Amino acid sequence: MDPQLAKLHKPDPVAFEYTTRDAIVYALGIGCKAKEGIRYVYEGAEGFMPLPTYIVAPGLNANSSRNWPGLKIDMKRILHGEQYIELYAPLPVEGSLRSEKRIVDILDKGSGALIMSEITTFDAITGKKLAMQQICLFQVGAGKFGGAKTSSHDKKGAEIPKRPADRILSDVTSEDQAALYRMGSGDLNPLHVDPAFAKMGGFNTPILHGLCTMGFATRHVLRAFTNNDASLFKAIKVRFASPVIPGQTLETHMWDEGDRVVFETRVKETGKTVISNGYMLLHGKKGRGQAKL
Amino acid sequence: MDPQLAKLHKPDPVAFEYTTRDAIVYALGIGCKAKEGIRYVYEGAEGFMPLPTYIVAPGLNANSSRNWPGLKIDMKRILHGEQYIELYAPLPVEGSLRSEKRIVDILDKGSGALIMSEITTFDAITGKKLAMQQICLFQVGAGKFGGAKTSSHDKKGAEIPKRPADRILSDVTSEDQAALYRMGSGDLNPLHVDPAFAKMGGFNTPILHGLCTMGFATRHVLRAFTNNDASLFKAIKVRFASPVIPGQTLETHMWDEGDRVVFETRVKETGKTVISNGYMLLHGKKGRGQAKL
Repeated sequence: MDPQLAKLHKPDPVAFEYTTRDAIVYALGIGCKAKEGIRYVYEGAEGFMPLPTYIVAPGLNANSSRNWPGLKIDMKRILHGEQYIELYAPLPVEGSLRSEKRIVDILDKGSGALIMSEITTFDAITGKKLAMQQICLFQVGAGKFGGAKTSSHDKKGAEIPKRPADRILSDVTSEDQAALYRMGSGDLNPLHVDPAFAKMGGFNTPILHGLCTMGFATRHVLRAFTNNDASLFKAIKVRFASPVIPGQTLETHMWDEGDRVVFETRVKETGKTVISNGYMLLHGKKGRGQAKL
Repeated sequence: MDPQLAKLHKPDPVAFEYTTRDAIVYALGIGCKAKEGIRYVYEGAEGFMPLPTYIVAPGLNANSSRNWPGLKIDMKRILHGEQYIELYAPLPVEGSLRSEKRIVDILDKGSGALIMSEITTFDAITGKKLAMQQICLFQVGAGKFGGAKTSSHDKKGAEIPKRPADRILSDVTSEDQAALYRMGSGDLNPLHVDPAFAKMGGFNTPILHGLCTMGFATRHVLRAFTNNDASLFKAIKVRFASPVIPGQTLETHMWDEGDRVVFETRVKETGKTVISNGYMLLHGKKGRGQAKL
């Protein structure tokens, strides 16, 4: 790993187009239901909008690290550790976007390298900056290259309060949640649908995408703290702690912490934490007001 | 209604393109699961193929009757009565198709007009004829125009045997089955997702697409009689008897009748028949052999 070299590389922006249909398949992929939020699953609904975390689709599309100078990637030993998303404006109903990827740091964690990349996405038509997302990948076994251990770019996760959660919401994922999420997100990694491939990766069965779990958690926070008004979404940070099997129940524990909602998501059947140190930032008082519900 | 005039009209073929993703969203829309048939929901699976009834998507796309000479259409008073599909070859993994629509008859049923159209679909690259589907729409209140009461084009439904069914399979539809089926099929009629629109149409709640129910029935027959090998599908005929509410359980009763499987589909919770007089034709002995299971 050569952080200096990796940080200098500035590849061309990557284009991404989506329709209302794409945004709806994504919304259904993260378990959104018509009864819960028809404006996210029906293109003719008043106030139709893509869910804010749909930004991961153009992000993924622009996230290739192939031939990136200074990076040594081994796809078989890479883990998606953390994700941060900040939206500067609601996503358009249909979009023509362009995204720019940069490596902002590579940390030396001893047992591996933490590759921090940031993808900034613009509306290709208006030129407006729509979102930034920071993706932390952990390359197992690639540490000890003499790099820094911390970074000023680090979007730190939240401390989970000691008191009981202010709100808890849960949702059962479907047995085919990952199969559907693949179509909605464009993340076609066979790990999430192919039993043989999952076994090679050391899993008994295909696992859910971490970002799908993040989508469920996002819906939970929006329902609990904004009366399900996704236009109040500002930012989210999650750390992926453990895998989820499609069919399991995701239970999000939420704490109203002033300007942000702190949360963690657990698998109800096992009690295991799957998203840790999460938080969401919301626009305006509506969200915080709703927190008292 | 002027059957002579309507039958003479030969509009240009209509193009339709689809990807593996489109075929998978359709398969998930009719309730197909990875565990049941990974080759229908994972583009990398061995023997991946679109489910045969996906042909309804190009069919719908070519089915506009706007400005059709001799036809008087009132969309608010039209019912999808029957559907027949015959496949001449398995659908390609990804497709570039063209479809030709013809009106083959308009029957005078007194209380309304039965508009029989046929859509023939070709592979646009090879020119090969892939499928024919016959769609029977019932235009309420448009009868008594002095037309014929029967047609040589009529694909008659099956008689349901008196004996108990040889096989029964059931599936619970999800609460958002119709929302997902809309995305898979391209049938965006708000009746299937918008509660206000459904109420205007006289329904308490959005109803499932008849062709989605047909998709479930197709899966049931393929599982019961072909060991879920969709390449053995030859033809299907269904009559839509009653609407289905997303979330209800679809139960298909099947009879092994020599060269065909006769079936009807009921809502388990109410006992109501929703597809009547159905049959499926299968290729080869495998299907018939499996019938003894």
